[in-house]
Amino acid sequence: MSDPLLHGELVDASKRYTSTLAPGHIAVEPRRQLAIVSCMDSRIDLFGLLGLEIGDAHMIRNAGGVVTDDVIRSLSISQRLLNTEAILLIHHTDCGLQKVTDDSFKDLLEESSGVRPPWAVEAFRDPYSDVRQSIGRIRNSPFIAMKEAVWGYVYDVDTHQLVPVD
Amino acid sequence: MSDPLLHGELVDASKRYTSTLAPGHIAVEPRRQLAIVSCMDSRIDLFGLLGLEIGDAHMIRNAGGVVTDDVIRSLSISQRLLNTEAILLIHHTDCGLQKVTDDSFKDLLEESSGVRPPWAVEAFRDPYSDVRQSIGRIRNSPFIAMKEAVWGYVYDVDTHQLVPVD
Repeated sequence: MSDPLLHGELVDASKRYTSTLAPGHIAVEPRRQLAIVSCMDSRIDLFGLLGLEIGDAHMIRNAGGVVTDDVIRSLSISQRLLNTEAILLIHHTDCGLQKVTDDSFKDLLEESSGVRPPWAVEAFRDPYSDVRQSIGRIRNSPFIAMKEAVWGYVYDVDTHQLVPVD
Repeated sequence: MSDPLLHGELVDASKRYTSTLAPGHIAVEPRRQLAIVSCMDSRIDLFGLLGLEIGDAHMIRNAGGVVTDDVIRSLSISQRLLNTEAILLIHHTDCGLQKVTDDSFKDLLEESSGVRPPWAVEAFRDPYSDVRQSIGRIRNSPFIAMKEAVWGYVYDVDTHQLVPVD
């Protein structure tokens, strides 16, 4: 660990944060009826970027922001149990998944662990094409009921612009 | 859609946000060498809660904050490609996944779509037990190399407290 004090530092920060919030119940159903699917990338602050408040939207994030079966699981729970209707996909430039292939990363894991992962790595070259691929997976899923409002964007991590995907 | 203007409103917000940031490259590797796994819940703002800056940590989020195969995929990419070493798990009170069972939610999807999902719903009763379950899945995965620093918490959405899981 580069920072052995990290754990305590995060807990201290949470105490300062919670002291600024008034206790009280906010509904579990997102106020804006919105679910966002985005990459885990450390440079994407969805609250700041989209001007969201606590309670506004579900935030689903994984390596790449790729629509996997686990994202379909999360979106189906978001829509069927918690009344969201719109889906916003945000991939980004300079993604770690653009720097490997499925084969090369599986080789790496197999060499170090002895086990080849049974799942797809979801490597990709072009974030715009990958957003279109993810939208296609949503459109093809029987478990996503609301597909009228599905919007795709690529976030440029250097210019901080959100670019729409046609 | 409850709010037909939502899409344009979010894009406008992103333009205001990006105008406040200086363009410039921040490294893809998280500065704090930290990956956070949390629920998609709309009431959890990880930047605010943990006092994080842009570039600090990966944020992996799904329904429940449960460690699924897709989370293992994301964590393996986070550690092997992007040098994170610590993992922080945050589940929370009042989760939608506490209000269903795997069977009842699969029945619901099957009734409306005709297709029974081939994946686990990952419903749970107690968030503390579920954090322990997720830590166990990390400890048992051959694809996660760094397991020394794995910390579990439950976020209370009403009191805003972060409670450690033993």
